[in-house]
Amino acid sequence: MRAPLGEFDLIARYFTHAAPRAVLGVGDDCALLDIPAGETLAVSTDMLIEGRHFLPTVDPDALGHKALAVNLSDLAAMGALPLAFTLALALPDADPAWLEPFSAGLLRLASAHAIELVGGDTNRGPRNLCVTVMGTVPRGQALRRAGACVGDDLWVSGTPGDARLALGAMLEEWHIDAPALRTLRPRLERPTPRIALGLALRGMATSAIDISDGLLGDLAHVLRASGVGARVEADAVPASPTLAAQPRERRRQCQLAGGDDYELLFTAPPSMRTDVARAAARAATRVTRIGVIDTSQSLLVVDADGHDVASGFSSFQHFGAP
Amino acid sequence: MRAPLGEFDLIARYFTHAAPRAVLGVGDDCALLDIPAGETLAVSTDMLIEGRHFLPTVDPDALGHKALAVNLSDLAAMGALPLAFTLALALPDADPAWLEPFSAGLLRLASAHAIELVGGDTNRGPRNLCVTVMGTVPRGQALRRAGACVGDDLWVSGTPGDARLALGAMLEEWHIDAPALRTLRPRLERPTPRIALGLALRGMATSAIDISDGLLGDLAHVLRASGVGARVEADAVPASPTLAAQPRERRRQCQLAGGDDYELLFTAPPSMRTDVARAAARAATRVTRIGVIDTSQSLLVVDADGHDVASGFSSFQHFGAP
Repeated sequence: MRAPLGEFDLIARYFTHAAPRAVLGVGDDCALLDIPAGETLAVSTDMLIEGRHFLPTVDPDALGHKALAVNLSDLAAMGALPLAFTLALALPDADPAWLEPFSAGLLRLASAHAIELVGGDTNRGPRNLCVTVMGTVPRGQALRRAGACVGDDLWVSGTPGDARLALGAMLEEWHIDAPALRTLRPRLERPTPRIALGLALRGMATSAIDISDGLLGDLAHVLRASGVGARVEADAVPASPTLAAQPRERRRQCQLAGGDDYELLFTAPPSMRTDVARAAARAATRVTRIGVIDTSQSLLVVDADGHDVASGFSSFQHFGAP
Repeated sequence: MRAPLGEFDLIARYFTHAAPRAVLGVGDDCALLDIPAGETLAVSTDMLIEGRHFLPTVDPDALGHKALAVNLSDLAAMGALPLAFTLALALPDADPAWLEPFSAGLLRLASAHAIELVGGDTNRGPRNLCVTVMGTVPRGQALRRAGACVGDDLWVSGTPGDARLALGAMLEEWHIDAPALRTLRPRLERPTPRIALGLALRGMATSAIDISDGLLGDLAHVLRASGVGARVEADAVPASPTLAAQPRERRRQCQLAGGDDYELLFTAPPSMRTDVARAAARAATRVTRIGVIDTSQSLLVVDADGHDVASGFSSFQHFGAP
């Protein structure tokens, strides 16, 4: 039997967890958090809507993970250490068969990052999840978009494109055999926020962004904010084995224009190459140099023969002065 | 002609405003905020859903005001000074005729409190507004629910019940003549967050809460958190002229069980009466003593003859040990 949503004891049961770092957690008008001296607060908010960001059939455990992961990814891209988050939730009903795995997926990722759920709001309505995440970064050390310098290397973490390849297979745009899809799907449904890498890159990266809208589209944000251009070597972008086995055009589409990867795209001076490699090793995260920042005020993506390969990707079409 | 929601320049146009207090506002992966030394961060989040918290016909300017006001009210109830907020917004379409007044109402209240919109997210979906508000309070000075002491006076700001009286008239539960309703509706649609009063009560009030679910229901939260009881004098609860003119049962229903007032309910020792009165005068906010905190472990509401009048109000029915 389903309990009516008005009975908040059900919600309290699923979303209450220990919050030892908060001065005051769930249960008062506000949560209270102490920010360490010398640290700046970093804040980001994301809303996930059923039918737009996820399908009604999604595994609730994976959805709980992803709702928090996409927000943590924003902290990672600033080099911030996660501190706490709030969750506002609209649900058509208070179904334990959904709430239990959803909260399990959410709180498992929270625990992995020692981050606390400090406030929330639950309502009846079309399914909608709004997470606001807070973190801290030493004053002046945040990794912003507006810091890329001419001559900097352009780096990317992981193997971008896997999430888009998985989505295309699930939408039957193309076929991926079942064992390969089982490996790919977690890259779409349970992305890994690159918190460890973001922290390790403090003081090294000159700019950073997370890839949520596609590599070229997000790179365009960095270039615009920094007032510079870039040249990307298409064949340098790393690919997972399944992605590497795809036809070249599909591979490039996924790598360059696919969203939902939540990898970090960042810049650093060439003098920092060894430091960046060591930082990535410390963070146990693969990083690859894929291009260079230049004075061109444009974004050029070239193949091994130097031919421009970017013009086919829509996320890149409208790049230019705002 | 309506612009598609994907064109974020429209959203940027309506929701971009100066954010001089933030280290970094809208436009990066996170906003960055400095918290003054010795201050604790207070955080609260609220989600407003069309069809549940507001009707599709609501004035968008009033809705923009209310979405922020209900969150500021949570800061007021902690004695916190507003600092910044984020807004995540789901909209069926990017209609300027809606966005313009909505953002005007939202940002007008933000400006009145010198609070900045530092982050956001906009998506297509069933209309849903999620605001997360941040404020600061000197360490150890937050007004919590769990501080009411035996012998404390129980105080309330403003004239609770007006919002419920207006709602009932709009739902045709009862009739209020048009001029009176014009005076009442802003109490429902444009509530005043009692920020000035919350700040003035620092160091005086032993507990505080804002009345969002009805006076008795919210008082019950304070009593439970503080491990005490209370005796409320029903006739001491102040009423606006229109509410005072209603039949007694309706008046009491609105005053004691009506929600959406966003007045402050707080406790303070009798030795502080003069200080509380001066603080309220400084905040230009009416406050009234309506009862006393006692050892009873229960909540008694009495009329002038000492008869219990609370048993008819459903928000009070389930009060007791959790």
